[in-house]
Amino acid sequence: METETHGAATQASSPWPARSGVSRAELDPTRFLARSATLYPDRIAVVHGELRRTYAELAERVNRLVSSLRRNGLEQHERIAALCPNVPELLELHHAVPQAGGVLVAINTRLSRREITHILEHSGARLLFVDDELAPLVDAIDGLEVVRLGEAYERLVAQGDPAGVPSLLRDEEEPIAIDYTSGTTGSPKGVVYTYRGAYLNALGEVIEAELGHHPVYLWTLPMFHCNGWCFPWAVTAAGGTHVCLRQVDPGLIWRLFREEGVTHYNGSPTVQIALVNHPDAGPLGRPLTAMVAAAPPSPALLARMEELGIRVVHVYGLTETYGPHTVRRAEEDWHALPVEERARLLSRQGYAYTTADPVRVVDEAMCDVPRDGETMGEVVMRGNNVMSGYFDDPEVTETAFKGGWFHSGDLAVWHPDGAIELRDRGKDVIISGGENISSIEVEQTISAHPAVLECAVVAIPDDRWGERPKAFVTLKEGASATDAEIKAFCRDRLAHYKCPDAIEFRALPKTSTGKVQKFALREPEWSGRARRIN
Amino acid sequence: METETHGAATQASSPWPARSGVSRAELDPTRFLARSATLYPDRIAVVHGELRRTYAELAERVNRLVSSLRRNGLEQHERIAALCPNVPELLELHHAVPQAGGVLVAINTRLSRREITHILEHSGARLLFVDDELAPLVDAIDGLEVVRLGEAYERLVAQGDPAGVPSLLRDEEEPIAIDYTSGTTGSPKGVVYTYRGAYLNALGEVIEAELGHHPVYLWTLPMFHCNGWCFPWAVTAAGGTHVCLRQVDPGLIWRLFREEGVTHYNGSPTVQIALVNHPDAGPLGRPLTAMVAAAPPSPALLARMEELGIRVVHVYGLTETYGPHTVRRAEEDWHALPVEERARLLSRQGYAYTTADPVRVVDEAMCDVPRDGETMGEVVMRGNNVMSGYFDDPEVTETAFKGGWFHSGDLAVWHPDGAIELRDRGKDVIISGGENISSIEVEQTISAHPAVLECAVVAIPDDRWGERPKAFVTLKEGASATDAEIKAFCRDRLAHYKCPDAIEFRALPKTSTGKVQKFALREPEWSGRARRIN
Repeated sequence: METETHGAATQASSPWPARSGVSRAELDPTRFLARSATLYPDRIAVVHGELRRTYAELAERVNRLVSSLRRNGLEQHERIAALCPNVPELLELHHAVPQAGGVLVAINTRLSRREITHILEHSGARLLFVDDELAPLVDAIDGLEVVRLGEAYERLVAQGDPAGVPSLLRDEEEPIAIDYTSGTTGSPKGVVYTYRGAYLNALGEVIEAELGHHPVYLWTLPMFHCNGWCFPWAVTAAGGTHVCLRQVDPGLIWRLFREEGVTHYNGSPTVQIALVNHPDAGPLGRPLTAMVAAAPPSPALLARMEELGIRVVHVYGLTETYGPHTVRRAEEDWHALPVEERARLLSRQGYAYTTADPVRVVDEAMCDVPRDGETMGEVVMRGNNVMSGYFDDPEVTETAFKGGWFHSGDLAVWHPDGAIELRDRGKDVIISGGENISSIEVEQTISAHPAVLECAVVAIPDDRWGERPKAFVTLKEGASATDAEIKAFCRDRLAHYKCPDAIEFRALPKTSTGKVQKFALREPEWSGRARRIN
Repeated sequence: METETHGAATQASSPWPARSGVSRAELDPTRFLARSATLYPDRIAVVHGELRRTYAELAERVNRLVSSLRRNGLEQHERIAALCPNVPELLELHHAVPQAGGVLVAINTRLSRREITHILEHSGARLLFVDDELAPLVDAIDGLEVVRLGEAYERLVAQGDPAGVPSLLRDEEEPIAIDYTSGTTGSPKGVVYTYRGAYLNALGEVIEAELGHHPVYLWTLPMFHCNGWCFPWAVTAAGGTHVCLRQVDPGLIWRLFREEGVTHYNGSPTVQIALVNHPDAGPLGRPLTAMVAAAPPSPALLARMEELGIRVVHVYGLTETYGPHTVRRAEEDWHALPVEERARLLSRQGYAYTTADPVRVVDEAMCDVPRDGETMGEVVMRGNNVMSGYFDDPEVTETAFKGGWFHSGDLAVWHPDGAIELRDRGKDVIISGGENISSIEVEQTISAHPAVLECAVVAIPDDRWGERPKAFVTLKEGASATDAEIKAFCRDRLAHYKCPDAIEFRALPKTSTGKVQKFALREPEWSGRARRIN
């Protein structure tokens, strides 16, 4: 319905403004750094031991690195890998690699040499930045240039232009990073993140973690893990301080909490348990927020964290969802409840982030399960918080996106209040100390042992790590192998955290069609527990 | 550079995942409501006097309204106007109209009958929601259906489906609202907002105002003003309480501060001055954040607000930038400075929002002026925080977007620290009590008086309103008119706040080419002041 009073427009032409670049900027989380460097040039952006760098210094180093990378012939969307602990250089690479037009591949430092080689080859990385401590894990690969942190890295920084170079980004749905995850097929899959997804997830973290202005964030969460849940960009957007950390050392962490005035950190229950039980643990007398992921905190852990004044935000997600996708926090009216009840309520995985689309729990026909807190279904997600797909793997992507939703493989119930609560994993994933272990990958490794006929690996509950893998092994007729031999065989071939804690030699229970009944193996290990995940 | 190890992909095909709807949701700020209604069904979403509605109730009413609008034949992108004070219905319309596919036109309630008619006609509104108090201002217009708040409105709500209807949104750059602004040409221009811009600006407000979770927001800022700076969506995203307010009544506001536990409110210095000088003013003993816009707080105002424990966030923007575009807050290291110095630092307009692109200050060739705190230039903006253009006015849009940037018309200096500071307005806009007045519109009105030969209107400083219009009038030879007659003539034709406070009869100073030298008229009125805006 148009009136006749319009000026220039005729009835045929649209009264709506044409699109123009004036009204649109591509969402790009690396641009927060330049803003914070302008607003807070003298604020401390990075702390690492004695090292302190201001935002002006961080931005200049990143600019120099960007220009060096570009000068060295980096092409748009080429992969640049990093194998480093949570050191300042890995933070810099989160900003510099995308700004230079590259795609960051931050590799899990706990992987084996073989796994690392596979990721470097599969991603087609042109350049690898590696920490001295981890350099022995890296094999020579044709076409891969290796730059060690330290002298070589600093030379690259020094050679660059402190003013940086213009961004090549034309479309916010271009790839910004690939994060390799242990997959159900046994070989790691490269989860592709976009600029848009990383930007919105970073803002999501600012909001859900209530970073406010100038948080002091301690890097307990590995930065190689879903790009540190986008916190390299989120904390920078908030003008905060990144306190780097080579390894999770509870004594050091308590010292940093106190000396650096830490306000936020993230970690799995395994990390939290180690922290709250350390002799140096004690209330700080100021707010400290911990996002807890991988598994909900137990009543005992929650009680202890509350006692220490740590505000718990329970989150759940996968590598495919840029890390956290749902959030559950204590509501004010829970105060009167006993801690067991609060922990029970908090243990739900909750609701999708402010910046995410609602999650669903569905049956095999992709219909919502009843919200009765009892019927199990698969958790599926979609929206800006979901990866664009797997790198160079259209078939696996298609399977993961079946029916227009990302299939988490996690089984949950849906409560009447809309909160989801995980009950089991449909995928063969074991989560140990916050790290994913593919049971299939472990099975394939054990099966390669000459004495092994077949095997099945399942998760068993573990007080320290949440879950650990246990292998059930059938030996070939006439062959023999000991528990210790199988374990040693695994340790030679797998990241050590993936190796089974227990081996049981036995015949495997099977269906009439010959499929191994993992359920029957797992059940006795979890007897007396309500959930089949920990 | 591709390795040979990839699986299914051939060298010719891209290793990057294809785009899919799984990884992308259109940004839509109206979707926050459904999320908050799921997470916090029993939390109070709306307060108005004795009225209290939970999030579940608000969401149901909005759903009903959406379905009623759609059933009544609303077509996509049809305009639906509202002429209401800050009542719950206007908040509901901010969610319901876009969800129904319409475009909201919230009209300034202080405009005259003639101005309102013009906006209704120009926007081509099909439907107008009007508050009883304001209904007398509305003329009958062909094709415009008028629905009064109260019984008629409630009937629409009651008739609707509580489950709502699916969104028609296909592209986040579709229009969500038109906000009419007083323009330099004298006739109001329809500033078009998009879903994407409103979403990102809403998140920007969550971050810059530090809304956190469950803020209690008092609606001192008119909701018709840049869609309340997107706070109808931002506060909803944060699961907060909207405390509605029919008019700015300082006594009532202090009562609501205390009784409702208000945590955030926004307003011009005019509103702030009235508030802090009210006999009921007193510290609340808990955090209260005020965004101050339209003009910076004076040292006296800042000191008084600090004394009352009100945290001041100084913001600056225009209707064309969804309201605030830049932000300036007190930094911790200012504490030691005297209040005059803190006010001086805070009076700068500062830096672009976290979600906005950096502002620039440019000369006529669109080159950056030196960052010397002295050289004046025009403030220009671009990015997601800039309107898509003016409704049905491609020529004015083109002028405003000249050189690929939105021209604010405001003149500023650029400080070495990157903060901008306004010095004057290039456009003939007078900002009075937070409302824009076009001096040209007032001039055209006065010039229509039969006794007037010509006139010029400029801003003069005013302690209460910041600025007020003053008219310099030359009468026709032999004609006569009094100060009171001119004022009455204006009051019949213009919103009352636009009518000049002072009239001076004199010959107008002109350039050799005959152009009125407004500068010469304005200068004596502002003598002894550093800036030419207040």
